[in-house]
Amino acid sequence: MSNDRIYNFSAGPSVLPLPVLEQAASEMTNYRGSGMSVMEMSHRSKVYINIFEETKADLKRIMGVPDTHEILFMQGGATLQFSAVPLNLIGKSGKADYAVTGNFSGLAMKEAKKYGEINIACSSEDRNHTYIPAQGDIKVSAGASYFHYCANNTIFGTEWKYVPDAGGAPLVCDMSSNILSVPVDVSKFGLIYAGAQKNMAPAGTAVVIIDKTLLGHEHPLTPKLLSYKIMAESDSMHNTPACYTIYVLGLVLKWLDAQGGVSGMEKIKAAKAKILYDLLDESKMFIGCAEKAARSDMNVTFRTASEELDDKFVKEAKQEGFENLKGHRAVGGMRASIYNAMPTEGVQKLAGFMRGFEARNT
Amino acid sequence: MSNDRIYNFSAGPSVLPLPVLEQAASEMTNYRGSGMSVMEMSHRSKVYINIFEETKADLKRIMGVPDTHEILFMQGGATLQFSAVPLNLIGKSGKADYAVTGNFSGLAMKEAKKYGEINIACSSEDRNHTYIPAQGDIKVSAGASYFHYCANNTIFGTEWKYVPDAGGAPLVCDMSSNILSVPVDVSKFGLIYAGAQKNMAPAGTAVVIIDKTLLGHEHPLTPKLLSYKIMAESDSMHNTPACYTIYVLGLVLKWLDAQGGVSGMEKIKAAKAKILYDLLDESKMFIGCAEKAARSDMNVTFRTASEELDDKFVKEAKQEGFENLKGHRAVGGMRASIYNAMPTEGVQKLAGFMRGFEARNT
Repeated sequence: MSNDRIYNFSAGPSVLPLPVLEQAASEMTNYRGSGMSVMEMSHRSKVYINIFEETKADLKRIMGVPDTHEILFMQGGATLQFSAVPLNLIGKSGKADYAVTGNFSGLAMKEAKKYGEINIACSSEDRNHTYIPAQGDIKVSAGASYFHYCANNTIFGTEWKYVPDAGGAPLVCDMSSNILSVPVDVSKFGLIYAGAQKNMAPAGTAVVIIDKTLLGHEHPLTPKLLSYKIMAESDSMHNTPACYTIYVLGLVLKWLDAQGGVSGMEKIKAAKAKILYDLLDESKMFIGCAEKAARSDMNVTFRTASEELDDKFVKEAKQEGFENLKGHRAVGGMRASIYNAMPTEGVQKLAGFMRGFEARNT
Repeated sequence: MSNDRIYNFSAGPSVLPLPVLEQAASEMTNYRGSGMSVMEMSHRSKVYINIFEETKADLKRIMGVPDTHEILFMQGGATLQFSAVPLNLIGKSGKADYAVTGNFSGLAMKEAKKYGEINIACSSEDRNHTYIPAQGDIKVSAGASYFHYCANNTIFGTEWKYVPDAGGAPLVCDMSSNILSVPVDVSKFGLIYAGAQKNMAPAGTAVVIIDKTLLGHEHPLTPKLLSYKIMAESDSMHNTPACYTIYVLGLVLKWLDAQGGVSGMEKIKAAKAKILYDLLDESKMFIGCAEKAARSDMNVTFRTASEELDDKFVKEAKQEGFENLKGHRAVGGMRASIYNAMPTEGVQKLAGFMRGFEARNT
């Protein structure tokens, strides 16, 4: 890999495509003859508006966002959406359903309790979030304003393989950690949100895609920047957005196009994940943490039989240039986050290292 | 100027020091041997925490922030602080005083009305915000939880030359457009906030400096990321902060140190502003918009006797590489924003162009 770069398996912020970083560097002091850095541009200038609108149009095309939905660029990451979602959407009934399948969906649910009556429609806590509940296990409540779930659970390494049926309530989905890795029928969703720093861009922007019919029902105490209506009416420019992050997202989308878009990426990511999951299935040392049917293609969680061996693995991997493989403190073990921008080569080399480690330590 | 860069007089986002941009570019794909971009680093990694803590320590030292106060890095710019301030601080009495001396202080006041009873303690609206009220014109209300003002009015080109006495209520100050340009006795303030994109860094971060005794009184419906208490307890890492923006702020602070810190910058900015204000005082064509006693050293607003001539000026200036001189649509005319990172040379050349324009058009 050029530039003596390491393989960065961080769960977020995480690896970005090297050509994107190289282009950002080359344009840093003078963006395409403008005489300015993108960082220095007025967000209302023609040159920046062009960047913004092209990024938005590319995202709309790549994700197939229908005209019924609006794309917003907000700040505060997915976590601020944990508050914005109930502030904007819970009003009609004061009730909402939440699926709790990991850390972030649990945090979203807890935050929503400030704003209304929350029903836990399903939970995977009984088996430490190692699986995704089946449709039959979901108990929606009558009259919920929406149903919230998290499409991919970064910490536990599980991923929803189906879009749940919430009995007619608008679906609200946190796609922070698998957006743009798999085609999504956006028309099925009332609202999709995603912090940018896993699969899209540097930290600092959350993408929100909202069914326009859901706009305009916010709680009167909603901070104005958290009002989806105000953000939609101002095309995300009620105040200065995180301009540079949006620019980098634009570069990532161009890179994604060159990989065949989301359907191209789906094949690539599935092949990358298969390399590691095949290894886990064959290995006598490494054990996958998630149940097979729920395995995430973005975050591969695994461990050995002992914490000492886990630590040794993480330490030796780091020495070989495989960074951030330590699992989240809530679960221990290891985690390899292999988002879109992780090259296949990085996964192959990690698998090679794992095989060697197993051979050396058996 | 190197790189064919233009002189960018944008009111925000605005010019950054060229050495900062060059360093950011050179470190883009591999930050100091880490093998990663700063954009790609886990915010909880040692390498990033070092960047974060050094930036925070530099800001504390450069601004002289006492140990009684905590520095927070938040998202959403100053505008989200318009909501966060009353959500966190108005609780004790349900009342607050606002000085309205321009666009942003008016917007802050309007947003605060959602959360309590707002008294307009003084206003410069009677003379279209061309001046700053004197201490004697400020009518504070009994029992206000805080007094809010905006230290520099970007659109109108006025700046508070004194720290108001609010009769004991904590002072809350929006310093977005003059922070780090002039020494401030932070101990006098309950809370200082500033969007980064004028005098500090790219858009995406707001710096908040809060007296720790004010923590912990937030409204129960406060989104958790807007709780100063939660942000203080987590050292601004309750979720992923705008990591890259904070890194660039760190580079800007190193650059500021090399200029002699805030006291060095105070001399430089006063000299830059004097170049333009002396010209306005001598000119028979250009007219300063702000009253002399209130003139901002950051945003110099001026006009000619006719809109046609204003337009001609802006157009010809642009052709000569002086960008973003058009005044805000609310006031018309011209505005030269000459923040810390605007080189003295840029101001001198603008003054030369203005003299030439006057000679050619008289």
